[in-house]
Parts: sequence; C-alpha cells; structure tokens
Amino acid sequence: MNKVTEFIESNKEKNLNELIDFLRIPSISSETEHKRDVLDAANWLIENFKQIGINNTRLIETEGHPLVYAEYKSSHPNAKTILVYGHYDVQPVDPIELWESAPFEPFVKNGKIVARGSADDKGQVFVHLKAAEAYLATHGDLPVNLKFIIEGEEEAAESHIDEYIEQNPELLACDVVIVSDTEWFYYGMPSICYGLRGIAYFEMEVTGPNRDLHSGTFGGAVDNPIQVLSWMITQMKDKYGRITIPGFYDDVLELTPLERENFLKLPFNLQEYKADLDVREVAGEMGYTTLERVWARPSFDVNGMKGGYIGDGQKTVLPSKASAKFSFRLVPNQKAEDIIQKVVKYLEKLAPPTVHFKVRPTAGANPVLVDPQGPSIQACINSLEKAFGKEVVFMREGGSIPVVETFTKVLKSPVVLMGLGLPNDNIHSPNESFSLENFYGGILASAYFFDEFSK
Amino acid sequence: MNKVTEFIESNKEKNLNELIDFLRIPSISSETEHKRDVLDAANWLIENFKQIGINNTRLIETEGHPLVYAEYKSSHPNAKTILVYGHYDVQPVDPIELWESAPFEPFVKNGKIVARGSADDKGQVFVHLKAAEAYLATHGDLPVNLKFIIEGEEEAAESHIDEYIEQNPELLACDVVIVSDTEWFYYGMPSICYGLRGIAYFEMEVTGPNRDLHSGTFGGAVDNPIQVLSWMITQMKDKYGRITIPGFYDDVLELTPLERENFLKLPFNLQEYKADLDVREVAGEMGYTTLERVWARPSFDVNGMKGGYIGDGQKTVLPSKASAKFSFRLVPNQKAEDIIQKVVKYLEKLAPPTVHFKVRPTAGANPVLVDPQGPSIQACINSLEKAFGKEVVFMREGGSIPVVETFTKVLKSPVVLMGLGLPNDNIHSPNESFSLENFYGGILASAYFFDEFSK
Repeated sequence: MNKVTEFIESNKEKNLNELIDFLRIPSISSETEHKRDVLDAANWLIENFKQIGINNTRLIETEGHPLVYAEYKSSHPNAKTILVYGHYDVQPVDPIELWESAPFEPFVKNGKIVARGSADDKGQVFVHLKAAEAYLATHGDLPVNLKFIIEGEEEAAESHIDEYIEQNPELLACDVVIVSDTEWFYYGMPSICYGLRGIAYFEMEVTGPNRDLHSGTFGGAVDNPIQVLSWMITQMKDKYGRITIPGFYDDVLELTPLERENFLKLPFNLQEYKADLDVREVAGEMGYTTLERVWARPSFDVNGMKGGYIGDGQKTVLPSKASAKFSFRLVPNQKAEDIIQKVVKYLEKLAPPTVHFKVRPTAGANPVLVDPQGPSIQACINSLEKAFGKEVVFMREGGSIPVVETFTKVLKSPVVLMGLGLPNDNIHSPNESFSLENFYGGILASAYFFDEFSK
Repeated sequence: MNKVTEFIESNKEKNLNELIDFLRIPSISSETEHKRDVLDAANWLIENFKQIGINNTRLIETEGHPLVYAEYKSSHPNAKTILVYGHYDVQPVDPIELWESAPFEPFVKNGKIVARGSADDKGQVFVHLKAAEAYLATHGDLPVNLKFIIEGEEEAAESHIDEYIEQNPELLACDVVIVSDTEWFYYGMPSICYGLRGIAYFEMEVTGPNRDLHSGTFGGAVDNPIQVLSWMITQMKDKYGRITIPGFYDDVLELTPLERENFLKLPFNLQEYKADLDVREVAGEMGYTTLERVWARPSFDVNGMKGGYIGDGQKTVLPSKASAKFSFRLVPNQKAEDIIQKVVKYLEKLAPPTVHFKVRPTAGANPVLVDPQGPSIQACINSLEKAFGKEVVFMREGGSIPVVETFTKVLKSPVVLMGLGLPNDNIHSPNESFSLENFYGGILASAYFFDEFSK
C-alpha cells in the first residue's frame, strides 16, 4: 500500500486540477438547455476511466440522461467485487445572485473547492476513480473487481437507474455497493451512515359542496372542506406526537440502547440547532431526542395544502374543495406498501359524511438499515480511520436514497454509505463546496477500502 | 291611489323598455375598461330622474365611481322623508360561455327579463323611480320627501359610499331608508328581511423554521406550520359546532320562540338543499336548524388556506410558512370590534412556542336587526300585501350589507329591506334574471309605500 499512498500524495495537484475540469461542466440534469452538458460530463468520465486504465467503459442510454458504466476485472482469482455508485449530474444554480463567484468556475478558498457539484456528487464519486488510478499506476492491477455505475439523473425529476438495476442484476452483481453521496456528522469526524428512512407520499382531496358558496348565505350550515381537511390532519397524530394510524408502529424497529448511547455521544447542540432554524422550541414524538426523531423514528409531514381563496384581499367564500400533499418517513422495518394501505384505510374511515374524500398514494420507498457489524462496514471503518487518523462515528440519515433500497433489494448486497461531504458544504444551495482534506483523504480511504475488502 | 295604480298598470311596456335601455349599459364596476360604461349608467339615471320630474339630481364624484343623488321635496308640510338606496353597477359576466345570450342584450323569456344587473340591482332600484313617476305624473306631487342615493361601487373591491354617508348625515337625513337589493324567500312569497349577519375577517400566518426544510432531514423534530395552523383552526370550534373563543357568545341575541316558529313555517326543504349542494349531510351548531344557523347564529369559516408545495408532483418539504384567511359571521347584538379583540387574544394565546404567529383583522361589519314591529316595517308589509295580494313573510339573511349598518349608525333611521329578487334569479351568475311580476308589482309596492308611510 505504500506505493499507492505515495502516488496519491504526490498527485494531489493533478487530481485537483482534473476535478476542476470535471466541475466546469454545467451538467444540470433538470434543465433541458443543459442536456448537452450532461452528456459531456458522462463522456468526460468515460475518458477519465480510459486514462486511468479502465477500458471496459461505456455510456448506457436511457429514456433520460445516460448511465456511465465501467468495469475492471482483477487478475486475482476469487477477487471480490465492489460496485461504486455515484452521480455526475448537479442541481440547478438558482439563486445565482447568492453565489460568491460563478458556479461553474471552480476555485479554492479556505481549504475548500467551491463549485456546483463539488460535494454533490462529482467530487465524491471522483475519489474512487483516483483511488483505482493509484492502484493501477503502481501495481498494474487491483486486488478487487471494480464496477462503476454513475447516473446523470439523481437531481432530475425522473430517474431510470432503478429500472436499469432491476433489469441487469447479473451485470451489476457484486459483494458490496459503495455509495459516497452523504455527509459526515461534523467536521473532522469521519462518519458511516448505516440507516436511511423510507417514505410514503400521498395526495388527498376533500370536496364539500359542488360549488364555491357564499360564506354569509351558507356559513355555519355546510361543512367547510378546509376545516374538514385541517381536522383530518390533526387526527393523524396524538398529543404526544405519535402517529395515530392503527398498526403504524407494528414493524418499527426500536433503537438499541447502544445506538441511543452512540447518538448521545455525537456533538449535537440543540441550542445551535434551534438558533439556526429560528425556532424557540423543537417538537416531536415524546420520549426521543431530536437525532432519534429524525434518524430512527417515523414522522408525518404535510408538504403542501391549499383551499379556497388565497389571492390578495378578502373573499367571503366557503370553498368547494381543499387538498393536501403529505408524507410519512418510515424507519426499519416498516414497509412502504403496508403503511400505504393502513393510511388509506384510516383516512377513508375518518372522512365525515359531510364531504367527498379522495386519497391517492403517489410514491413509496422502504427504509434501509445496514448491519454495522458486517465485514464491508468493518473494512470501511478501517479504511476511513487509516486515511483520516480519526475514529469513525456511526450515524443515520432522516432522508431517503431510493437507489440504495433498489441495490439492497435487487443485488442482495450490503451497501456502505461512505459519505465525504460536510454539513456546511451547502449542497443544493449557493456556494456549494467540498473540503480538500476530505477529497484527498477520500482518495486514500477508497484505496484502503479496496485493500481491506480484498482480505 | 287609483290614478297612481292605473298609471303604473298602463305604463308597463314603457317601463320595461326603459329598464331594457338601462340594462344595456355594461356598467361593470370592477373592470377598468368599463369605467366609461359605469359613468354612462349614472348619467342615464340622472336623465331618467329629470324626465320623471325630479330635477334636483346630480353626480357626486368619489375617488372611484360616482354616486347618483336625487331629491324631491314634497309640498305637504311636515312630510316625512324616505331615502332610497340602490346600486347601478353590476357584476362581471364570466363565465360568459354559460350565458344563453349576451349579458347586455336583455330579452324576455318565461316572464323574466334576462340580463346582467336585472335583479342585482338595476331592476330593483328602477322600481322606485317608476313609482315616483306615477305619483308625479298623476298628482304633480309626492306625499313624502324622497331622496335617492345610488352607488356605482357595490360590486367593486372598494366602495366610497360609507365615507360619503359619514360625511353628509344632514344631506341624507331621513325617517326611513328603503333598500331593494335582497331576495324573497320563495317565488310568490313577498318577503321582508329584518336581519343581516355582520362579519369579522382576518388573515393569519404561522412561520416555523426560517426556511423551507427537507422533510427527511428535519421531519419529526421540527413543528410543521401547516399542521400547527390546521390544529389552531380545529381549536376554534368544539365538537358540537360551537365557536370556542372565550366570550364569543356573550352578546348573541337568542331567537325568540316566535321567530323560530316563523322560520319553521317557511317552505325550506332540507333534502332539496342537500341535493342542490351535493352534500350527504349538512353540519353546524347543535340544537339549531339550517335556517337558524345561517340567519341567526354566528359562524366560522376558513375562506382560504395555503402552505408548502402545491404544484404538480411531489416535493418533500417541511414548509417554513402557512397562512389562512378566515372570518366569523356575527349576529345581533355582537359587535365586530369586540369579536376582533377576542379572536386575536385567543389565537395569540393558542399559538404554540414552536412557531411565530401573526393575526391581522382585515374587515369588520356589525350585524343589523330591524324592529319588525316598527311603523316603517308595518308600512312596508301593507304595501307589499296590497301590491302582490299575498301575505308577507319575515326572513333574515346570512350575509352582510355593510352600507345598511352605516345607514343605521350614521342616520339613526330604520332601514327597510324591501327586496324583490327571487332565489333563482342567478345573481352574480350567468343568465341573471328579474321576474316581470316582481318588477311591475315592485313599482306598485313602492308607490303604496310612499302613501302608507306618509300617513
């Protein structure tokens, strides 16, 4: 490994310059006028794969932006296989006026490279190419088989990678999937995320009278759809913050005492959290801390609601209709499909006879929990600790990464979330950045992982 | 009176043709492109006043559309004074495609004149000009002093008549105000409305975190403004449909047993009411009928609400903000100012410490109750019964006519709501109409009222 780490050390400048080159391509997948740029970014990756000696690489066309595939077969017999996932597309740049400099003119400031896509996810995925390069340049081989699947639609409304995975389980077969698209808990604290929440998303609509009514002529005698909807929303949680859907908690996996202890050790500062959000008090399920609530307990949020007259001034209307979008975040071992059925059943029963009621599930993704005792996680811990010289912390995330569940489900392989971002990297916001320490250290960590995992 | 009634009888065709002429003017006060038409309608009225022999008439400029004023001084010493209020502006015509014929090309069909403004309010106000004409043409005098104040902004967003009344109480001083801008309870059932509900209108806003949050990363730990607002809305009524604001019912005047009995005698059909609205069940304050609820009990309606993402598809947002417009309908003897204070106090106390809360009253109007035993109402009953040969019924209305309260407050005169519309006249809707029976009968009734009230 010494040659590998020396190579990485002596190629810092070259690697940074290549990343800058990659970051210059405005591969915004959700904006049609950048379609060509997205393709350019895909081809840039293929070119880089070839340069580092991985020649089995190609574009995979989809109905949207293409996937980049690359594969290296180790000469070691019985070598294990690592599949690296990442994305080469980026978020839009708005609001552009809040950027200190142009989003696609990368520059280094205070030990960070500032550019759209630097942390999310070009910088993080590029780490693994440079680790492979170091191995190939110094040993002419890798101790593991390496596969890459890098998508260009992670930030787009519609993505085709899940479909592709489902249709190509043999091509993508592997012993572990490594995903670097998450964040550390805190600066200087290498982190492994071992849990993601799932989601069940719905739309509902309450229709009262068949037309908007005059609130003077009818007010007090005809039920108001906004008020019915508001009441139904309040009936979904009790006063202790627990969701009231019957059977909702049936499959919820409780946190272990060790997990709760570990969460408490993390440098989470509730005062700072509240100050940052400008709320006097947080709220949530009684008996759990804030980190437990967002990482390991289910939640219910109304994501949008509208009804009646919402323009300027006043209108004395008793509206015919009100609607809402709402979602539940799910935790291991809840199943989206099961929750969807329970929610629909509960709401249909709850709706009063004064209105017509419709509810429609629009999306679902199961939660993910990776066994923190598994060999792939152990290899990841060792690699991060060697690369960064610090102890790894375990965390979960409250959001969902649907492709992670697809990997788990289709490939039956463990997924390791070896994130390298930092909480203040401003992903999806102006002045996105990526710490150079994490970029250089990430390359080392990836190289160590190839070694550790091959053992 | 015989000469008067004969004159009215023999001038039916002329009166109808004049009304048609008046209805041809598209005096839509809320649409800037009709500003000239609104002025034309005002001038048309002034011309008609002069033709019938009322020469003391003039336009009164306001910051919006002008008021039409006219006055006739009776030669009888100690003659009492009647002030007639009405409006010459009309509602917009949308949706135009639902009209059987052009809204400003009046035509007669099935005993009704169909045109925008026919019932609301050109036809109803014109009745009183034609009654005065009949008197002046046959007697060269009127038994009462007659004043008219006819506004051109009743259907506009902003109206200046209240201000004008407040500034000119002497000019408008009178013994009774007669307003024909309401409806009968039912076809063939001359009606006197003796009560109107008042209103208190508000906007409120709940702000949680200082920015929209990711519902995965924060959901379950940070209070959701839509859910807080929904909860606050549900806290404004108990499960028996009563408003929970402390002191809200303090001044509510209960219905008398006689009033309840009279309401029950009216041909109100709850099955038809529900079928018309397409609701399986009505809802409201326990212990009251539907008519009692809308005419004589206060109500609470959310008129509009919005928060979060309301576009197509899904967005996993925990929104920063949610807002609502809401209003209370008030009944005698509630005071809008008192209710506004109680509501604001209650809501500010109700708002939880997880959010920032703002509530703002935007309008208030007191309810109106006319003493059904007073001499002006008695004169009105007699006049309607003579003109239509049917017994008068007493009703209230659930809406508010703010100018009525201004008349009551400033002029200290009783107001008589001598409406002539019918429930199926489609006011504010396509194919607005006015019954010819009520038009001709209304002229007679107005003439009888001049006579009755002079006694």
